Amino acid sequence: MFVRGLLDSPVVQKTLTELTERLLASYRQTGGINHLDGKNLPSRHAIALIVQDVLRVLCPGFFSDRVIHSSEVALETATLMDSVAGRLEREIFKSLDYAPPAGTNRALAGTLARQITFEFLEELPTVRDLLGTDVEAAYNGDPAALSQDEVIVAYPCIEAIAVQRIAHVLYRKDVVLIPRIMTEWAHGRTGMDLHPGARIGSHFFIDHGTGTVIGETSIIGNRVKMYQGVGLVARSLSAGQALRGQKRHPTLEDRVTVYAGATIMGGDTVVGAGSTIGASVFLTHSVPPNSLVVNEEVRVKVMEKKRASAALDFQI
Amino acid sequence: MFVRGLLDSPVVQKTLTELTERLLASYRQTGGINHLDGKNLPSRHAIALIVQDVLRVLCPGFFSDRVIHSSEVALETATLMDSVAGRLEREIFKSLDYAPPAGTNRALAGTLARQITFEFLEELPTVRDLLGTDVEAAYNGDPAALSQDEVIVAYPCIEAIAVQRIAHVLYRKDVVLIPRIMTEWAHGRTGMDLHPGARIGSHFFIDHGTGTVIGETSIIGNRVKMYQGVGLVARSLSAGQALRGQKRHPTLEDRVTVYAGATIMGGDTVVGAGSTIGASVFLTHSVPPNSLVVNEEVRVKVMEKKRASAALDFQI
Amino acid sequence: MFVRGLLDSPVVQKTLTELTERLLASYRQTGGINHLDGKNLPSRHAIALIVQDVLRVLCPGFFSDRVIHSSEVALETATLMDSVAGRLEREIFKSLDYAPPAGTNRALAGTLARQITFEFLEELPTVRDLLGTDVEAAYNGDPAALSQDEVIVAYPCIEAIAVQRIAHVLYRKDVVLIPRIMTEWAHGRTGMDLHPGARIGSHFFIDHGTGTVIGETSIIGNRVKMYQGVGLVARSLSAGQALRGQKRHPTLEDRVTVYAGATIMGGDTVVGAGSTIGASVFLTHSVPPNSLVVNEEVRVKVMEKKRASAALDFQI
Repeated sequence: MFVRGLLDSPVVQKTLTELTERLLASYRQTGGINHLDGKNLPSRHAIALIVQDVLRVLCPGFFSDRVIHSSEVALETATLMDSVAGRLEREIFKSLDYAPPAGTNRALAGTLARQITFEFLEELPTVRDLLGTDVEAAYNGDPAALSQDEVIVAYPCIEAIAVQRIAHVLYRKDVVLIPRIMTEWAHGRTGMDLHPGARIGSHFFIDHGTGTVIGETSIIGNRVKMYQGVGLVARSLSAGQALRGQKRHPTLEDRVTVYAGATIMGGDTVVGAGSTIGASVFLTHSVPPNSLVVNEEVRVKVMEKKRASAALDFQI
Repeated sequence: MFVRGLLDSPVVQKTLTELTERLLASYRQTGGINHLDGKNLPSRHAIALIVQDVLRVLCPGFFSDRVIHSSEVALETATLMDSVAGRLEREIFKSLDYAPPAGTNRALAGTLARQITFEFLEELPTVRDLLGTDVEAAYNGDPAALSQDEVIVAYPCIEAIAVQRIAHVLYRKDVVLIPRIMTEWAHGRTGMDLHPGARIGSHFFIDHGTGTVIGETSIIGNRVKMYQGVGLVARSLSAGQALRGQKRHPTLEDRVTVYAGATIMGGDTVVGAGSTIGASVFLTHSVPPNSLVVNEEVRVKVMEKKRASAALDFQI
Repeated sequence: MFVRGLLDSPVVQKTLTELTERLLASYRQTGGINHLDGKNLPSRHAIALIVQDVLRVLCPGFFSDRVIHSSEVALETATLMDSVAGRLEREIFKSLDYAPPAGTNRALAGTLARQITFEFLEELPTVRDLLGTDVEAAYNGDPAALSQDEVIVAYPCIEAIAVQRIAHVLYRKDVVLIPRIMTEWAHGRTGMDLHPGARIGSHFFIDHGTGTVIGETSIIGNRVKMYQGVGLVARSLSAGQALRGQKRHPTLEDRVTVYAGATIMGGDTVVGAGSTIGASVFLTHSVPPNSLVVNEEVRVKVMEKKRASAALDFQI
């Protein structure tokens, strides 16, 4: 109310015009954070909708408010596939047009976008098989889980891992931007930052998962289990972009368990099969199979009773 | 543009039909991640809307864009209660139909759903009382807080704890799926994974909270304070589902403070009243009242000045 | 179906009326979590929309589904500025009306709201310059980054840092509630809790970022890099609200790197320029420039092969 009328006044309009002019001058001066007259970037919003439809294809009947009957699933799936194919092809075209893969050029982008879309859809049954092992691992690994249905409906790791496996298919086909936009969509929803480049085996379970990070060149074996806040990360080398493409993140062999908040660093670091890494460990070198890796014992100091509240003041 | 016309071509349609056929074959072969011809699962979307309306009932006037006057609060509350009651009963019915509690059967689901809905609504004043102590604890505990109003409007722990307390009421009545769907809704929004099974005392405060995990069988006393990334977790026993129902998560007595990233593990672990647990500690055994638990001292190594950038290369 | 008819029955209505009565009684008794007949609080929803429009102004062309041409950017920016100005002024008015800054009163709130809105818009080019250095730092610091475009479109730290820098402008002008509502909006989306009060230098990069917390009175130099789960936090003093306004959070000088899950605590704690803090470190005192700070070495114990699965049982 108090605003409406005044904003139309000549003085206010003059000020707003000046403020806009400053911004336009800033657009002309500052390079990196403008995107004007450029190529179309893939749309975050369109990709979010595509990912959700692909999840529906992977786990039919789970993300709908009503029961789906066998008799209708064929028609529903055909309709969904048709819709996903068209929309995904459009986004892949933008991506190829933005950064054509080596050995191709923009003229081929249309043909290539269609081909990659079909190859992607062709791999969905394989992705489903892997995802089925992840659901099984979550159910078997968590005594709090009631049923595999509950795992799919309520465990955020299923969504995060499914999206990583979907994005990984496109990553392997040298599509840029889209895979990362997909996993960042899941990152925002689940707190799990699983890079599309990571190679992840079957029966993978991340319990709770908020803050867990798996870097681009990580390799993870079968039946690996990890918790919230675990990081498979790279050394922060001053070399920066010079390391692009090199293996910078660790390898976890089969049946490794990593507890909450542990950080495992470096492209040469290999955690041997069957090993367990304790919470908050910072591991920067390889360990042999069946290792148990923990921090030094904690110090426990019992304060006098009258100092109980002072203990909260926490002067170490 | 380039996609629209071509998708209608016979060749593309043939390919899409084949790809759909592969998926349908996969649905027939892979069991666990289909939900066809089954019972109706509770709807995640409907439950998210119910939770938001219950939050409005708990903190009247806070989640509306205009001031609510005392004269209208009676009518608004009655309308909201009416709406919540009908929708919640429908979701509880689906849950009881999916997994009837011991000693009941599907025929009783309808009657039981109504009864549980009323019992749930009856407990809301008690939940409000507890939540009021949580708001008080957040305000008193955080010098950055301006007022209790700001705490309710801007502190994510209030939303996460409120939803846990709501879900806990249904959990105690043996309703499955819905409580976990509720807390996972809050987990996605706040990064706090507070299991509906946990028993939590009054004046509970989680500052920042992203990545904090409280497991199903945790017991937390009064006036406990914790920070982001804290985990009250279970041992990852190979026994898995065999442990269902056992106490697997720790007990924190009154006035315990747990700093960021600390992990406390195991159903037998009891942290005595008035204790303080330092950041990144991994505690797997009990400690007496008034304990101060910290990691060993960190090592500090000062590099030569010219090695400053090399220090970033971080070869430990 | 089973619900619809019955809810209209007199018995059910009587019960619902009684349950509503209990709540109304609770509203009368419990103070802190009601907001009735009070002043209008700033709207979380309106502020979320304002923030998104300011992000569009800062990075033109990035958050739109189509290419923006130079010829139209002047008109688009003017329209956006006009719309933001009106809506922001309205929210700032509510904030000043709720808590008038020292030396002013409610009668001045209207004039002051307009003035602060204009001062805010005037600073946007400066915020853009800083944000440009952050994008540059993210691209240079991460070998996984394809281009600065990808950084803006897909890296959550850009959103989190941009919102902090926006909110910081209002924080410095003594506007309450709105800055925190802004950063909590970003916190919910990115898992990064960057308080609007923190003073942050140029070229700031937070990789992954989920669970990272930067407290109100933190001071961060130029070219600082940090990872997920890092906390710049205050001691949990029993003094609580008595510490309001004091420096409670640490200072990081230029070119400091902090690895995942490290917690740095206390207002007197200064991390000297060029230092590196290892993962999971809990640092409660100052360290000189060029320090390398790490935890004690981890213990590695290799179990016999047949004990591999028992290692998962993890008895330390």
